[in-house]
Amino acid sequence: MTAIATQDEQGIRIEEALRLRFAERSTAAEVYGEPFAGLWRSAAAHATGGKLIRPRLLLDIHRALSPDSRRRDTDTAVGIAAEIELLHYAFLLHDDVIDGDLYRRRRPNLIGTLAHDGGARDDLHWARSSAILMGDLLLATAVLGFARSRVSTAARLRLLDLVEHTIVETVAGEHIDVGLADGVIVPDLRTILAMSTYKTATYSFSLPLRAAAVLAGASVEVEEDLSAIGRHLGLAFQLQDDLLCIFGDAEAHGKDPFSDLREGKETAIIAYARMTTAWTKIAPRFGTADLTTEEGLHLRGVLRECGAEGFVQSLVADELAAASEILTAAEETRTMSGDVVTCLRTLLARVEGRRS
Amino acid sequence: MTAIATQDEQGIRIEEALRLRFAERSTAAEVYGEPFAGLWRSAAAHATGGKLIRPRLLLDIHRALSPDSRRRDTDTAVGIAAEIELLHYAFLLHDDVIDGDLYRRRRPNLIGTLAHDGGARDDLHWARSSAILMGDLLLATAVLGFARSRVSTAARLRLLDLVEHTIVETVAGEHIDVGLADGVIVPDLRTILAMSTYKTATYSFSLPLRAAAVLAGASVEVEEDLSAIGRHLGLAFQLQDDLLCIFGDAEAHGKDPFSDLREGKETAIIAYARMTTAWTKIAPRFGTADLTTEEGLHLRGVLRECGAEGFVQSLVADELAAASEILTAAEETRTMSGDVVTCLRTLLARVEGRRS
Repeated sequence: MTAIATQDEQGIRIEEALRLRFAERSTAAEVYGEPFAGLWRSAAAHATGGKLIRPRLLLDIHRALSPDSRRRDTDTAVGIAAEIELLHYAFLLHDDVIDGDLYRRRRPNLIGTLAHDGGARDDLHWARSSAILMGDLLLATAVLGFARSRVSTAARLRLLDLVEHTIVETVAGEHIDVGLADGVIVPDLRTILAMSTYKTATYSFSLPLRAAAVLAGASVEVEEDLSAIGRHLGLAFQLQDDLLCIFGDAEAHGKDPFSDLREGKETAIIAYARMTTAWTKIAPRFGTADLTTEEGLHLRGVLRECGAEGFVQSLVADELAAASEILTAAEETRTMSGDVVTCLRTLLARVEGRRS
Repeated sequence: MTAIATQDEQGIRIEEALRLRFAERSTAAEVYGEPFAGLWRSAAAHATGGKLIRPRLLLDIHRALSPDSRRRDTDTAVGIAAEIELLHYAFLLHDDVIDGDLYRRRRPNLIGTLAHDGGARDDLHWARSSAILMGDLLLATAVLGFARSRVSTAARLRLLDLVEHTIVETVAGEHIDVGLADGVIVPDLRTILAMSTYKTATYSFSLPLRAAAVLAGASVEVEEDLSAIGRHLGLAFQLQDDLLCIFGDAEAHGKDPFSDLREGKETAIIAYARMTTAWTKIAPRFGTADLTTEEGLHLRGVLRECGAEGFVQSLVADELAAASEILTAAEETRTMSGDVVTCLRTLLARVEGRRS
């Protein structure tokens, strides 16, 4: 029961921190007129109410890394956790602009909402421009949050290096992803795995884990182990996402079935299939917007038969095993405490058991 | 001769600081593959070689505010000056994406260059997405530069507040500008003057002046005076830009003649004309892409006759007078030294005498 109560308390504190940030900025925005204040309110509505995976991850590990509650600075950790959620939303906004997406998990995203408000001569231009600008504001806000954190100078400089590395790597990943979509970059397996790590694993897993280490005053060795574990779990998570999108239960996953196939998304599954003789059966209908459900089911079958599903499943298993190995070594050398290892094993099991 | 030598030395130091920043990041980007490293190199080529108006302004005032060269931290000032230039370029990149511009001062901008490289399935998508991402990187880099500046904690927090205020206000100005272009916001004179102040004056004039004040350890009063002077000079500068674009020498100004009229740009000139009976003669051809030179010359004549040119010229004079008044008061109360007043009067005279 304690764990559940703690989980709820954690969620409430992160949500409060996020709400406060948006409330302050929405109020300050009023001096610039209603459209700008309204943009802040819309962003707040879209950016809050999520699962808060990244902030929760930071707080869980932070707690495990600093067992002495009297010396644990939870306020600062909650603050940085909230900044990471803002950074996440800034990335989502610019991704949606770049991908031309108007929906996220079947509901209109910020762009979709603004475009449907009407009143503009060019609704989509107004909506996309607003999303670019709100992404800029949230990106700057998140970096400033890191810069203002009340920690020692050494810890602050480590946090600044961390957030810079994270932004560069995430943007590099997105740039490669755009290059793959636009046919500028060859979609080989190695490139796609690197892209997935850069674009997702770094900011969604390594960043919260490493930030927790810095805030808890953990050693550079622990931070490096956490960084590597984050990369493995993050890549496993993204590969699972690719699998779920094609082979999973669309209802539970919340994505349109076969949307990746319709959009011609270059994933590890597709990269593997390209190397098999089955590709001739897939190529003609891959990346066609008018793909029917029947055709989608057929492509799914071919991707299964040619071994692409099994291959990517084995990649997921490899990544989870690599994370587990680091944990075992850290346990043996006592680099990490039992609490930290348990916390990370729980996380690992959660990724492993993921079905949606 | 001393003044010219100093100007040159100043330019060289700022250019070196900018080159170093881009070189470090281009090299670090190589690990993410050639397209990403290439994007950094292209951005460096486009972002350097400019007139460095903002960095020079900061360094001029910084020197005047801290006459004792032994206590003057020019290295830090050059660093912050370079970050302001990066911030400027980040804003330009996202503005160009939003406005759909492929040229700046008649030469291809970053988007135009990338789009002409060819090789992408959708050249413009690749170019614009790259520009969004590079803008994100430079925005984060600039904020991190402010955060890492080697100054006292109090000065650092003042710099962080300053850069946050600047980003919010500039983005708010751009958001209003987009709202005007898309017909979401009513183009009345008051809104257009506010938009011009937010979008241009704040980051181009107030930011370098205020940053210099913080770095030189000047009082809050001096910083506030500099902020107000920056707003007045910046608004005057933007209004002059609007005048030059319609009535000026297109060759010297470097803009296509009548481009503002073709694009239907909502400026103070147009806001005034809308309130006169002459508007019925302007409206039918305002904002038409196929405006001929003859029609442009005709519209120019009508805008002159209806008093729009003279009205905006008087606004420019008012703004310059307001800046001058603050200087006179600061001189009388000895809030500012003679050196600082002289430096700002030189700046004022330069804006006043601007012909291109």
